[in-house]
Amino acid sequence: MATTTSHLKNVKSTVHFSCISNQHRSHLTTKLKPTTVRMSMTQTPYWASLHADIETHLKQTITIKEPLVVFEPMHHLIFTAPKTTVPAFCLAACELVGGQRHQAISAASALFLMEAATYTHEHLPLTDRPESKPRLGPGPMMKHVYGPNVELLTGDGIVPFGFELLARSNGGENSERILKVMVEISRAVGSGGGVIDAQYRKTLGGGSDGEEMCHVEEIRRVVEKYEGRLHSCGAVCGGVLGGGCEEEIERLRKFGFYVGIIQGMIKWGFKEDHKEVVEARNLALQELQFFKDKEVDAIKTFLNI
Amino acid sequence: MATTTSHLKNVKSTVHFSCISNQHRSHLTTKLKPTTVRMSMTQTPYWASLHADIETHLKQTITIKEPLVVFEPMHHLIFTAPKTTVPAFCLAACELVGGQRHQAISAASALFLMEAATYTHEHLPLTDRPESKPRLGPGPMMKHVYGPNVELLTGDGIVPFGFELLARSNGGENSERILKVMVEISRAVGSGGGVIDAQYRKTLGGGSDGEEMCHVEEIRRVVEKYEGRLHSCGAVCGGVLGGGCEEEIERLRKFGFYVGIIQGMIKWGFKEDHKEVVEARNLALQELQFFKDKEVDAIKTFLNI
Repeated sequence: MATTTSHLKNVKSTVHFSCISNQHRSHLTTKLKPTTVRMSMTQTPYWASLHADIETHLKQTITIKEPLVVFEPMHHLIFTAPKTTVPAFCLAACELVGGQRHQAISAASALFLMEAATYTHEHLPLTDRPESKPRLGPGPMMKHVYGPNVELLTGDGIVPFGFELLARSNGGENSERILKVMVEISRAVGSGGGVIDAQYRKTLGGGSDGEEMCHVEEIRRVVEKYEGRLHSCGAVCGGVLGGGCEEEIERLRKFGFYVGIIQGMIKWGFKEDHKEVVEARNLALQELQFFKDKEVDAIKTFLNI
Repeated sequence: MATTTSHLKNVKSTVHFSCISNQHRSHLTTKLKPTTVRMSMTQTPYWASLHADIETHLKQTITIKEPLVVFEPMHHLIFTAPKTTVPAFCLAACELVGGQRHQAISAASALFLMEAATYTHEHLPLTDRPESKPRLGPGPMMKHVYGPNVELLTGDGIVPFGFELLARSNGGENSERILKVMVEISRAVGSGGGVIDAQYRKTLGGGSDGEEMCHVEEIRRVVEKYEGRLHSCGAVCGGVLGGGCEEEIERLRKFGFYVGIIQGMIKWGFKEDHKEVVEARNLALQELQFFKDKEVDAIKTFLNI
């Protein structure tokens, strides 16, 4: 990861909304319209088509069955978590290397589930953060329909289910690829320098009194570990399951990382013409050059251009 | 599972310590010496040898590295969680079918990690259970060295790490077996009628005011889903990775279930000569008959005889 991050480590300034309260921040993000910007990505026909396929697959897989006390909250929490770009991006990567969408649908669904579990646990009211305010980062607040204990258990149940879905998707001939994908997902969502690490950093950055994280560098480091790592993982999973060669997969790993930086920075309220975003986009386009003989227009929509 | 549980569903009496307070309960469990009984199992030379191998494997795998903020609590929480019989039982099942201990060491380690994560989250101080008293079942209390948020994140990080360990253990020729084992573990520790379901039941049984669960039937149902399901899973994983045939694996599934009932009921304070325990032991011995041409003395120590 060192080579991919080094380009993005030269800014120490504070972002223009530095150290403002949550209340003011919410006004500012409205002004910056991050939601509109983000929705413009998640409203593209390509993303919508990919996302619809993943939701259909998950709805067929996760039925509300006995014990209802387990599956009803699980169903609710999975399908009310905010939509993200990672699962669809995994399918897009699969298609880019010439694979069929269905080959990566279980990996995309597993990523969807991991993100839903993370979202649920990020909003868990613990005794040291009873109000569960969204100091762990930007994004919509969660409406608590269930008690904390049920939310904790449901999050805990969703993660193994994601791995099960993936393990069961083995048609008999691609078990090697599935295991490779599992290692990628485990590392990205676990403690291996991915989501958990980003969450620690967000908590530390936020401080115990709920202060905002306000340095560009600090935010970017979290974005690298969170959205960067997850998009990178999604791209690799799609590439592996779509039958990409080693070099294609390593290009996708870097490309995915930059796509994650773009998506993450925009989510934090940075404008599309902010230096960091522009730089990440240029680096992403460089990686995409490798695929110039392929159909790249579809996956380019993830660059918000 | 229907056939394995039906034998044990004919008691509706309350256990002799029904509906007593936590304080009185703790006196009673002292009187019943559940710890002594349980330790007699975990002090057998066979268990100790299996457990030592798993701990050695895990200590080699889980080093304290950067980021320390992630790996230091992870290391601590994994190695201070109470010792259980499940991981060692997985290795014992592997040896029973003629396999080598090392073939199942990753699955046993993954089970060890899953149980450590469950223990950590069971003691998480949430706003609806701020004192984190051990109303979720018997067993030692956890000393909170870290804040709730760190404990939450660490538990969340441990589970994917368990799957990663297993996915990485593929030597190239047994990926099919590993995927099979992953499905088993996911179902047992996830929402598929295993640990999560048992935790819901324990919470419901305990009531919102911390009441004790006190009906034999209710306790047994939790034990079936928790210790029964986990030991059953451990046995299957060991059998699969040790190269057992289909029938051996299905026998191990049932045998493991009864071993779990014995271990679980004793943990809850039932005596070794209690009707439920005796009945489970007899059914376990029946299943073990299938392996009469094998070396069964070692695995028999898990029956506490």
